[in-house]
Amino acid sequence: MAKTNSGRFFEDYAVGQVLTHAVPRTVSGGERALYHMLYPARHALYSSDEFARGCGLPASPLDDLAAFHVVFGKTVPDVSLNAVANLGYGEGRFLKPVYPGDTLRSVSEVIGLKQNSNGKSGVVYVRTTGLNQRDEAVLEYVRWVMVRKRDLEAPAAETVIPELAKTVAASDLLIPEGLDFTGYDFDLAGEPHRWGDYEVGEVIDHVDGVTIEESEHMQATRLWQNTAKVHFDATFRPDGQRLIYGGHVISMARTLSFNGLANAQMIVGLNAGAHANPCFSGDTVKAWTEVLDKAETAAPGVGAVRLRLVATKDGSVGELKGDDGKYLPGVLLDLDYWALMPV
Amino acid sequence: MAKTNSGRFFEDYAVGQVLTHAVPRTVSGGERALYHMLYPARHALYSSDEFARGCGLPASPLDDLAAFHVVFGKTVPDVSLNAVANLGYGEGRFLKPVYPGDTLRSVSEVIGLKQNSNGKSGVVYVRTTGLNQRDEAVLEYVRWVMVRKRDLEAPAAETVIPELAKTVAASDLLIPEGLDFTGYDFDLAGEPHRWGDYEVGEVIDHVDGVTIEESEHMQATRLWQNTAKVHFDATFRPDGQRLIYGGHVISMARTLSFNGLANAQMIVGLNAGAHANPCFSGDTVKAWTEVLDKAETAAPGVGAVRLRLVATKDGSVGELKGDDGKYLPGVLLDLDYWALMPV
Amino acid sequence: MAKTNSGRFFEDYAVGQVLTHAVPRTVSGGERALYHMLYPARHALYSSDEFARGCGLPASPLDDLAAFHVVFGKTVPDVSLNAVANLGYGEGRFLKPVYPGDTLRSVSEVIGLKQNSNGKSGVVYVRTTGLNQRDEAVLEYVRWVMVRKRDLEAPAAETVIPELAKTVAASDLLIPEGLDFTGYDFDLAGEPHRWGDYEVGEVIDHVDGVTIEESEHMQATRLWQNTAKVHFDATFRPDGQRLIYGGHVISMARTLSFNGLANAQMIVGLNAGAHANPCFSGDTVKAWTEVLDKAETAAPGVGAVRLRLVATKDGSVGELKGDDGKYLPGVLLDLDYWALMPV
Repeated sequence: MAKTNSGRFFEDYAVGQVLTHAVPRTVSGGERALYHMLYPARHALYSSDEFARGCGLPASPLDDLAAFHVVFGKTVPDVSLNAVANLGYGEGRFLKPVYPGDTLRSVSEVIGLKQNSNGKSGVVYVRTTGLNQRDEAVLEYVRWVMVRKRDLEAPAAETVIPELAKTVAASDLLIPEGLDFTGYDFDLAGEPHRWGDYEVGEVIDHVDGVTIEESEHMQATRLWQNTAKVHFDATFRPDGQRLIYGGHVISMARTLSFNGLANAQMIVGLNAGAHANPCFSGDTVKAWTEVLDKAETAAPGVGAVRLRLVATKDGSVGELKGDDGKYLPGVLLDLDYWALMPV
Repeated sequence: MAKTNSGRFFEDYAVGQVLTHAVPRTVSGGERALYHMLYPARHALYSSDEFARGCGLPASPLDDLAAFHVVFGKTVPDVSLNAVANLGYGEGRFLKPVYPGDTLRSVSEVIGLKQNSNGKSGVVYVRTTGLNQRDEAVLEYVRWVMVRKRDLEAPAAETVIPELAKTVAASDLLIPEGLDFTGYDFDLAGEPHRWGDYEVGEVIDHVDGVTIEESEHMQATRLWQNTAKVHFDATFRPDGQRLIYGGHVISMARTLSFNGLANAQMIVGLNAGAHANPCFSGDTVKAWTEVLDKAETAAPGVGAVRLRLVATKDGSVGELKGDDGKYLPGVLLDLDYWALMPV
Repeated sequence: MAKTNSGRFFEDYAVGQVLTHAVPRTVSGGERALYHMLYPARHALYSSDEFARGCGLPASPLDDLAAFHVVFGKTVPDVSLNAVANLGYGEGRFLKPVYPGDTLRSVSEVIGLKQNSNGKSGVVYVRTTGLNQRDEAVLEYVRWVMVRKRDLEAPAAETVIPELAKTVAASDLLIPEGLDFTGYDFDLAGEPHRWGDYEVGEVIDHVDGVTIEESEHMQATRLWQNTAKVHFDATFRPDGQRLIYGGHVISMARTLSFNGLANAQMIVGLNAGAHANPCFSGDTVKAWTEVLDKAETAAPGVGAVRLRLVATKDGSVGELKGDDGKYLPGVLLDLDYWALMPV
């Protein structure tokens, strides 16, 4: 039994530790097709090589969130196998588009640790970088999770809480080389609304919904080689339910947001993210967005919008937290990201 | 909310209007693999590059119906978002095979309008063309749908009912360039029956059946970027059921028809089509075919057969309509198409 | 009705008969992506082109079992359409890796026949070979199935029972050309355990489990163009259940075995296999392995391990048969194979 990976426990982490995550992955047109099968993905730049070339890219990249899921999935056996909860994301940046043929791998550095007062678990902060076959970083993000201790008697590590930016500054966003929206085809993109048409504070109801099935969320999660038991094994939780991978809800909400945000093409920053409530098979996921900020960029015709994307399972729009400051029970996801739009 | 596409209503259409549908799509080997995963697809010309080359083509094309679904899916946001019913298809022709690497887009022209006597809705006729990245038409068809009015007081458009051919004449069928069945390998194709073996009036029971699951029909529909709510959102219909995309039934029936029609390789014409009754998860789809007509073609070794493909959910064979002229309740689909076979 | 394939019955087989199976199949990156979506596949050599090149191969091949399923699927219409039971496998060897772009087809020779004493059925033994587009054999195996007679009065064929090796001798295993594990990256592979760390008799509990859904097993089975009714049609069996294709259980168990056998990269021999009990939707598949044998190979850094892979639906570990010599009811699969590991 010693050969099976039982995962790291809280006392196995040390600040400064570098984790080389296993199982590199080469992506192809297959992964792109699957992303379109698993999610209602319609952003034109990720659907058409011709459209992407019209925007100055060599071809249509793999969806940014697909790249994120591949990178994230590799970290699960080393970071969250014994996690009690995925607490948050921050300081995420997409640094280079991923194209069919690229091979991705992931590396994480432990940047913070804080044992809980109950002595049974602690919070682990890691900064994860996704790299391609040329050792170029394609994306990076910080994630913090609550991890169980194996041995409750193990001494508590010194508390180190990293200072994380509340949002990625617009000036720190990396615009993919060559991106140019001056010849952007709004007809083929599907909506006429440009960067200038969105106002800070504006709320958009994305209207469409998808009812989740067991088979689909397992397929999506497996595709990213995320093999956490809780998503696949109905005998694992006492209630017999399979918890849906939070990233599945992220991609579902983002693709549903096409309806109203068809021109928010590329994701370049991930400011913050929280999985507010668990999602289970049978839930109908809907989404709404609030425009949080806007910024100009140096790339021709390209503006940046900071968006709060909220996924719900009760169809509510515009409501996030109750008077107690806690997420309302119908909210699944609260994600704060930067996207690029034609100005 | 104004940013969300609420779709066109009956009074938004005018004869002569040209609709440029959004979200072009590049297809790859991924879409081909998925077609084989979603349907029991076994026609050799669409399965093997080697077999296709033996028939004079440069490689195995994307299944004709997959190309049809991609082109059709793009029209949904502009044509059928507010549709009450999909009434029919006609004058369909497949003009050029689609290969991995091709990028497809769709354009439609409104060719007819007829407001219903109740004043609440009307019939819209569109002629849709699918184009590749070289602006070559790959397929075209006419479709008519019943669309709601937004404003019941809006004046009725002048009635224009297009004159549509009952069937595509055999002489109007386009045979893919280079197609040559003189060296056709019947062993590898799976059945010995050639064009000469089929008789007009003959009925073939395809025997096999597939029980439909929610996850699969949603994946198939999404793959073609058809995002109509009714297929995905269990909270949308009062009965909590998700209506299955009619095209899913078309592909299921056509692929089931391999058993008895393994050599009806390429679809070249779509004469007529009706979705007789709705299909829901749990239904077991079976299929039968009646040979309606036969024609010679100018291509070496290639004959054309006109086939009525009927999908059922009760396993019935050879029965289509009741004494009242209406489709029997077990019939899902009545599709009239031209296919190419070795003579 | 005469046009539909009703399959061969016992009296239709003769020893020496060669069956050319239909529907060749070209595989692409799509099939590779789908294998990762359908199974928790994480063996690095099949996930990353870079990792495969580091092991001396030109690129990452299609998973060996995916190649097996493609070759196997083609035999179903000719061998097992009227099968009562799939009795066993033996003398399996993987002869050449399959790469995206390859086109596979299958040929079988009947090598044994034995009518049952009840006169209603008999056992058919076939040796199946999978070939690529260069007519190179990529894999071969023997399979025996019990097949119904069409005509109970048909004379019994002379009994011929082939002599089959109990296991493929280590010296008969073919190591893929160029394979070299001397520079093997254990970090990227995911586990530190090498060939020398495994002992004959050792039992490994793979810990993880997957609860099976109807949609997934049908998609997997269809992907390999295995269209046996019993897997798809809920109206076919009196109990309304769809029997899960045994190959689905094989791939599920093998990919679950990553956890503890991450370095058992390539499958090169299939010594024996039995589907001990039927698997249905809702079952949670888990797996354990017993190390049966070890052997050196001539390839640099490459050792061979003979493994008994057992899939269960009750989570049991290490228990296989009862006192009566029959498989315990919780056992789904008992598979004996050779894999290659870094020494």
